[in-house]
Amino acid sequence: MEKKITVKKSILKFTDASFIHEEDEIVAEFPLTLVVNGEEFATMVCSPDHLDELVIGFLASEGLIRFKSDIKNLSIDESRGFAYVDLHAKQPINQQYFSKRFIGSCCGKSRQFYLHNDVKTAKTAITNINISVKQCFHLMKNMQNGSIIFQKTGGVHNAAICSNSEIIVARSDIGRHNALDKLYGYCLLQQIPVRDKMIAFSGRVSSEVLLKVSKIGVGILLSKSAPTDLALQLAEDLNITVVGFIRGNKLNVYTHPERILEADQPNYI
Amino acid sequence: MEKKITVKKSILKFTDASFIHEEDEIVAEFPLTLVVNGEEFATMVCSPDHLDELVIGFLASEGLIRFKSDIKNLSIDESRGFAYVDLHAKQPINQQYFSKRFIGSCCGKSRQFYLHNDVKTAKTAITNINISVKQCFHLMKNMQNGSIIFQKTGGVHNAAICSNSEIIVARSDIGRHNALDKLYGYCLLQQIPVRDKMIAFSGRVSSEVLLKVSKIGVGILLSKSAPTDLALQLAEDLNITVVGFIRGNKLNVYTHPERILEADQPNYI
Repeated sequence: MEKKITVKKSILKFTDASFIHEEDEIVAEFPLTLVVNGEEFATMVCSPDHLDELVIGFLASEGLIRFKSDIKNLSIDESRGFAYVDLHAKQPINQQYFSKRFIGSCCGKSRQFYLHNDVKTAKTAITNINISVKQCFHLMKNMQNGSIIFQKTGGVHNAAICSNSEIIVARSDIGRHNALDKLYGYCLLQQIPVRDKMIAFSGRVSSEVLLKVSKIGVGILLSKSAPTDLALQLAEDLNITVVGFIRGNKLNVYTHPERILEADQPNYI
Repeated sequence: MEKKITVKKSILKFTDASFIHEEDEIVAEFPLTLVVNGEEFATMVCSPDHLDELVIGFLASEGLIRFKSDIKNLSIDESRGFAYVDLHAKQPINQQYFSKRFIGSCCGKSRQFYLHNDVKTAKTAITNINISVKQCFHLMKNMQNGSIIFQKTGGVHNAAICSNSEIIVARSDIGRHNALDKLYGYCLLQQIPVRDKMIAFSGRVSSEVLLKVSKIGVGILLSKSAPTDLALQLAEDLNITVVGFIRGNKLNVYTHPERILEADQPNYI
């Protein structure tokens, strides 16, 4: 039985200076525990859709897999909230390693990395893609308007993988990292090329978000919200264009502005 | 030297149909690694202010301490981003235990708990406090308007511990959980009674947020944003009133509405 991503609940709404009883739609939060090679690896809370993509994207983000072929078997027990993954690689998973602080400046990658795992998995973006400001507004508007669950509940973040003219696939989740992991999982499962793609995102751009985008391998991140300084330092180093505060007909270009065009390109549909 | 919580950066802003160069204020993101009894426990990224409160609130949230007297020594090396804590209790910290999935329904607490640690530390709220809708609007407005860093950057979440008529202390952080941990740390450090207090919060109410509020020990949570169904199930069980979408002169009461009054009480200042 498929889990519901929203549930109905009777609430007390205060509007026009008085209380009314109303049926409201609340976003569901689902705990999913990931068991890798027989060992409990992590418990995440998520919106219960596209769980295969979520698991695969999360494993790739954490550096446990690079391709879907690294997975021998994946089964999801939705009723109990468990995902079981067997990897072809049977080396023991040192869980502690994944959150260990990285200190050093001679690794050949950004000095801004602070976790060991990210040093191993973040990639410098290689892309020739560009996009006009008009296309940025268009993609952000389409993503937000297209998310029925967001319109209903206001309780999720949206992320979409896009060409410079249209949304290819969009995912929603109560966790902004999960929404990106679902996209990552989609790209790995469908084996779509990402170098000529970009990501539109409703959430704030922290270092963790930026690193996920880098791991997915796209070169442009479009966000409705604010970035942090650490995310921007990483974006400079990893050759990623960050555009933030895309609202109405305004936006801010924070890094690598050479990919953002004032006027439309001929290839704009 | 104190770390800055915002940094200036030259950006390209698109407004009124053209690009301008402008100096913008970006919220800082600071990695802080917590070493407990000589062992690396966690790395969090945060806004670098009130770090002592953050560390103490985080330790309490994780169930490692209950009072500030449980801490033998706390020192923070801001330049390297490390916090060193020595606890009086010297038992080894089983880090894996803290994120292990909890399965069971006979623990006498909510069936909605999914992590072992939360079963141990979440508390049923005991309070007689109530608040009028007008006071809800007043507290939310004051918290958001009072946050200079939010006004400047749009990149932080705000949380405040309040009486039913005024804000006692407010904290901001790039991470919504951190903002609550700072409040928790403040309450433990200042040893302020919490039963007659409430929390105002800018972020979405997930189960993790609700559990933190429960651990702090207040009975009313006021939020600008949406809750999840799991958070509301926990709130029902733990006797916490959740008010969400407090915007302008509208709000939704999701759980335990008996504490929310339509008209002001005589004790309203």
